[in-house]
Amino acid sequence: MRIKVINPNSTASMTAVIAAAARAAASHGTEIVAATAPCGPVSIEGHYDEAVSVIGLLEEIRSGERDGCDGYVVACFGDPGLLAAREAARGPVLGIAEAAMHAASFLATGFSVVTTLGRTRVIAEHLVRSYGMEHHCRRVRATDLAVLELDDPASDARAKILDACRRALDEDGSGAIVLGCAGMADLAADLQGELGVPVIDGVGIAVRFVEALCGLGLGTSKRGDLAFPIRKPFAGALADLAWRD
Amino acid sequence: MRIKVINPNSTASMTAVIAAAARAAASHGTEIVAATAPCGPVSIEGHYDEAVSVIGLLEEIRSGERDGCDGYVVACFGDPGLLAAREAARGPVLGIAEAAMHAASFLATGFSVVTTLGRTRVIAEHLVRSYGMEHHCRRVRATDLAVLELDDPASDARAKILDACRRALDEDGSGAIVLGCAGMADLAADLQGELGVPVIDGVGIAVRFVEALCGLGLGTSKRGDLAFPIRKPFAGALADLAWRD
Amino acid sequence: MRIKVINPNSTASMTAVIAAAARAAASHGTEIVAATAPCGPVSIEGHYDEAVSVIGLLEEIRSGERDGCDGYVVACFGDPGLLAAREAARGPVLGIAEAAMHAASFLATGFSVVTTLGRTRVIAEHLVRSYGMEHHCRRVRATDLAVLELDDPASDARAKILDACRRALDEDGSGAIVLGCAGMADLAADLQGELGVPVIDGVGIAVRFVEALCGLGLGTSKRGDLAFPIRKPFAGALADLAWRD
Amino acid sequence: MRIKVINPNSTASMTAVIAAAARAAASHGTEIVAATAPCGPVSIEGHYDEAVSVIGLLEEIRSGERDGCDGYVVACFGDPGLLAAREAARGPVLGIAEAAMHAASFLATGFSVVTTLGRTRVIAEHLVRSYGMEHHCRRVRATDLAVLELDDPASDARAKILDACRRALDEDGSGAIVLGCAGMADLAADLQGELGVPVIDGVGIAVRFVEALCGLGLGTSKRGDLAFPIRKPFAGALADLAWRD
Amino acid sequence: MRIKVINPNSTASMTAVIAAAARAAASHGTEIVAATAPCGPVSIEGHYDEAVSVIGLLEEIRSGERDGCDGYVVACFGDPGLLAAREAARGPVLGIAEAAMHAASFLATGFSVVTTLGRTRVIAEHLVRSYGMEHHCRRVRATDLAVLELDDPASDARAKILDACRRALDEDGSGAIVLGCAGMADLAADLQGELGVPVIDGVGIAVRFVEALCGLGLGTSKRGDLAFPIRKPFAGALADLAWRD
Amino acid sequence: MRIKVINPNSTASMTAVIAAAARAAASHGTEIVAATAPCGPVSIEGHYDEAVSVIGLLEEIRSGERDGCDGYVVACFGDPGLLAAREAARGPVLGIAEAAMHAASFLATGFSVVTTLGRTRVIAEHLVRSYGMEHHCRRVRATDLAVLELDDPASDARAKILDACRRALDEDGSGAIVLGCAGMADLAADLQGELGVPVIDGVGIAVRFVEALCGLGLGTSKRGDLAFPIRKPFAGALADLAWRD
Repeated sequence: MRIKVINPNSTASMTAVIAAAARAAASHGTEIVAATAPCGPVSIEGHYDEAVSVIGLLEEIRSGERDGCDGYVVACFGDPGLLAAREAARGPVLGIAEAAMHAASFLATGFSVVTTLGRTRVIAEHLVRSYGMEHHCRRVRATDLAVLELDDPASDARAKILDACRRALDEDGSGAIVLGCAGMADLAADLQGELGVPVIDGVGIAVRFVEALCGLGLGTSKRGDLAFPIRKPFAGALADLAWRD
Repeated sequence: MRIKVINPNSTASMTAVIAAAARAAASHGTEIVAATAPCGPVSIEGHYDEAVSVIGLLEEIRSGERDGCDGYVVACFGDPGLLAAREAARGPVLGIAEAAMHAASFLATGFSVVTTLGRTRVIAEHLVRSYGMEHHCRRVRATDLAVLELDDPASDARAKILDACRRALDEDGSGAIVLGCAGMADLAADLQGELGVPVIDGVGIAVRFVEALCGLGLGTSKRGDLAFPIRKPFAGALADLAWRD
Repeated sequence: MRIKVINPNSTASMTAVIAAAARAAASHGTEIVAATAPCGPVSIEGHYDEAVSVIGLLEEIRSGERDGCDGYVVACFGDPGLLAAREAARGPVLGIAEAAMHAASFLATGFSVVTTLGRTRVIAEHLVRSYGMEHHCRRVRATDLAVLELDDPASDARAKILDACRRALDEDGSGAIVLGCAGMADLAADLQGELGVPVIDGVGIAVRFVEALCGLGLGTSKRGDLAFPIRKPFAGALADLAWRD
Repeated sequence: MRIKVINPNSTASMTAVIAAAARAAASHGTEIVAATAPCGPVSIEGHYDEAVSVIGLLEEIRSGERDGCDGYVVACFGDPGLLAAREAARGPVLGIAEAAMHAASFLATGFSVVTTLGRTRVIAEHLVRSYGMEHHCRRVRATDLAVLELDDPASDARAKILDACRRALDEDGSGAIVLGCAGMADLAADLQGELGVPVIDGVGIAVRFVEALCGLGLGTSKRGDLAFPIRKPFAGALADLAWRD
Repeated sequence: MRIKVINPNSTASMTAVIAAAARAAASHGTEIVAATAPCGPVSIEGHYDEAVSVIGLLEEIRSGERDGCDGYVVACFGDPGLLAAREAARGPVLGIAEAAMHAASFLATGFSVVTTLGRTRVIAEHLVRSYGMEHHCRRVRATDLAVLELDDPASDARAKILDACRRALDEDGSGAIVLGCAGMADLAADLQGELGVPVIDGVGIAVRFVEALCGLGLGTSKRGDLAFPIRKPFAGALADLAWRD
Repeated sequence: MRIKVINPNSTASMTAVIAAAARAAASHGTEIVAATAPCGPVSIEGHYDEAVSVIGLLEEIRSGERDGCDGYVVACFGDPGLLAAREAARGPVLGIAEAAMHAASFLATGFSVVTTLGRTRVIAEHLVRSYGMEHHCRRVRATDLAVLELDDPASDARAKILDACRRALDEDGSGAIVLGCAGMADLAADLQGELGVPVIDGVGIAVRFVEALCGLGLGTSKRGDLAFPIRKPFAGALADLAWRD
């Protein structure tokens, strides 16, 4: 089975963290193809960054289809372009926020999300509603960390995240933690050990859920709004994104 | 006051319909700048089309800012990229679905949306929830018309739309109709005359609402998630979209 | 265009504040007719006051219809009698809470309401739900000011309101402020200057939204529950309110 | 125990039906005081009628307080002025829609409301949401009967209501029926016999619920928004409604 | 009228408290039959305890049916097995959380629940949603008291509960208190006297509401999912619970 | 990895169908332990059956813990006793309705559930709300098949289910089907082939999701309401269910 894990931002070092987490999570026999968006923002910290990042994501989905990938993971916690990506893919496409929140709801009656900048909190809150997680997600907590600080060993990122996790358990009454950024993938096991509750990194669980679906022959529905895009011309610089069957 | 009305698809003839509706609706003293997306799909009929169309929209918002536009209308009923556009603009940015649904809720306790293809119905239903219109919008009705058929005088588009409107009044118990495509802008007055209930074209009312907000000195909040994007590099083909203050 | 702005309480000095705000907001060519409820409470600070105030409001709507008014603004933040007023009017009728909350949702993903007494907070919270604003309105904040204190230059009303606004931005994470009382109409511009975020007075924006709807030929739906009232006798002291076409 | 049952419309013959139902339902030792609104519409079939009817209701609540009534029933299915009435009363005040819907939720996982004119259906639907009954109320069904037809032995009211009830059981999958008009109070037992499911008249159950609350020393909370109204002058024709402790 | 009040835990001393509250609340002429679950946990403080307690509850419902009981009260605040119990009963079956929350919504626009251990708070929050009380219940407050401490005169249970009630009024803005454990039944009157707001014990009000329903000839709907269970064999140790008409 | 799949009803032939589906779905290296409830109803077709079935389920969870099982599947579409089972288990516990609905939401924006008797539809609808699937689940469709008919080759079960699936696609606009009974597990692949959309059997996907969670070291949160039950005596016939660490 070949699963493509796409980092929608254009920072290759973050892709490396994501790919490592994906490979550590994958079952024996699963090939992880990791990709960095060929264009777009170096980190995704707002609606604007997110909207632009979708182009690179869709290009990677399309090349993945040509390369015979069985399923996809969108490795940015805002799950940018998820439904668009599903239109373009035959196999399942999971977002890491989606996978992590659903998994958390299997393990605890209440969870908290610990994310980066305050301005991305609204994005996470919108996802909570889209996924029907209002009654499971007790709170989205921002740490005021920039995404690329997570990559920087000199930053106090880990300490800030641990502190936010502890407050989530104490103040929100949550029973599990969802890590709200793909760049936190390498922290999950360590934090889980320290906190004694499930700490869920979306990259790992999304890979596993895609395996689960593919393993049962389940792919994206091609009936209705997720059917392949309608063939039509695209103008200008994006002409190559026009759909051809 | 200068309001830029952006057609996020790349079909200039549809922009002409939209521009005419915008100018007919605008108050004396308002300058309407109509723009066609310089790149992307010729019509927007799904999540994929919509995601790609956002690039052209954002380019037009950014050039609008350079040109001193006071506010913006996103003239596609899926309101693509609305929050991203707001990050990039100082003035108000309204989607036509947003404006039309809110206006309908001022005029009737229940309304129906009449839209084009069945696969865009899901997009409209998602907007209904985003805008808190679940209790006002009784139903989204698809007519199985392609967007570009609306432009074709030989099609039976008008008859199909009228039929869907009548069923909305009778079967849904709605008191008003929201037209679910920018390409229907020229039909509103005529349908309203025939049906005897408010028929709302989003282009016209969005222009008027932007005028209302600008007129009172109200623009997009620049505190929190709609603040201007964070400055950072963008890679590859989309490098020009990187934010510079 | 003639828009009637009705103060449902019986205090003429508050009507003067409201009328000034309405006139300042109105477009060139709009005539503002300001009216004070001819009967009922001197201020509206609870469900009881509100229920009684509706009689004066309906009388003013009816005289407005006779006088050829094109639309109406109900200038009390509880939006008392809004649907009843709509039944009695041909043109659009907007409440100031309704107009302000919808406008705020166009400008920010989250807003707070700053209102007067704690006991009116429940009324505002009910409106938040009626208008589908649960996901946009982060909090309704009371200031423990009586409505008529707003009129009193010796009171510390402005300081208390400013403090509540600042806490809304900091603690609620809101991007815009909705002023929760018609008597605060004169404070909006000043507070907006100080806070640097949109501060929305419902009177001004309601006038503008009514202009927008009237300008496009849109009025209250006369099909369904907002059709003109059914003709029937009314007994006793309120016999004059019986509907006659 | 003295319970005042107030018909907010001004038709004494309907009060007689209501009073008979209330007395048939009341426990031994309960005195039912039946009152007809001294002013206002002869029947309540819309938002406008309802708004005006509240004045007579409040007058009756206030005279009830002077006369030592222990609790109140608002005997119109729209529950007009319920929160205003609660402000004015020391004991409990129940609406018949409220009592009937809550009772239905105790007896079945889904119920339907069978009401009169289509235009009152929206009012009932708003109450369903206010009372948190969205998941219990499967549908509000209108019969296109005018309220006063219920009083007319020559009308086919009973047959139309029975037909709507049968369709509610078959098409909505409901397990209980709520009668949506005080004027249907005399039909409940008969319909229940015929249909074999609980058929709930709000007048009877509201009387019983008020008895239940009063019997345990429970009255309206006088802390917060349901505290007695604030003392203040009322102007004009409604000056007598000003609150005096 | 014979109402069976079932304590689903197996602690007879708690049944005595419950029985006393039920008898104090019951009307003249109502016979209260109090029962202790013949099997299962000595107190119910979690999902597991609750699930097991349902067996004893159902046995008591079935013996109640054989003994001609007219209605039932499930006297544990988690309302365990409520729908299962309704299937097995002809008359009404009320849970004490259900009865108390509905009653509170009749008396105040917002209430708080004061319960025992933190881990039962989630159970109460799930009931709030099942009963549609999200907009009335402002908060569920745990006191960290074990259920059986309530029975112990040496504990500081009363002081802790009173403190939680006061905070509910001040911090939650609630107008009424719902006591969140059957073992608190004897505290209601005393707390109400001290706090000056309605304090609702579910046992008393549930008894009264069952009286109200039975008095009007209303029982559990036997159409649909609450019809008597389907006859079929049950295996093993629970064979006696198999349904026989 | 050892996953225990528990059929909460006491019919061994249905366990055989479930076990076969679980083994077909499991990854290489996963051991499936299939268990039939040692006590309780032969099929689960209502709230009462479901409540009783939980005892056998909990017994099997507890023996599973003693036997070193890593995770559990509750193989009845009502997900009976799910939270109670989670309290008793260290590893993850998934219900088949839960797993199937979440999976469906990954593959389509709307799905329908096709289940057995009409009276179980209410149970499925309650689960839809518990899991936050209101916006994804378009409809729960009953086929009026008894659970044990699914086992009977002479019944027309398959034809009825296929017909309900087709109507779900056409009338509900769904893009995927969730099979609403563990006894349908053997039909999924065949129906998917015929319908051309994802058809999801909860048994298979629940096994896979448990593998996914266990594979990442994720188990049930032992902090908060899903912590192991509190140690305390249980009376009577169920004394053996008392928790001992």
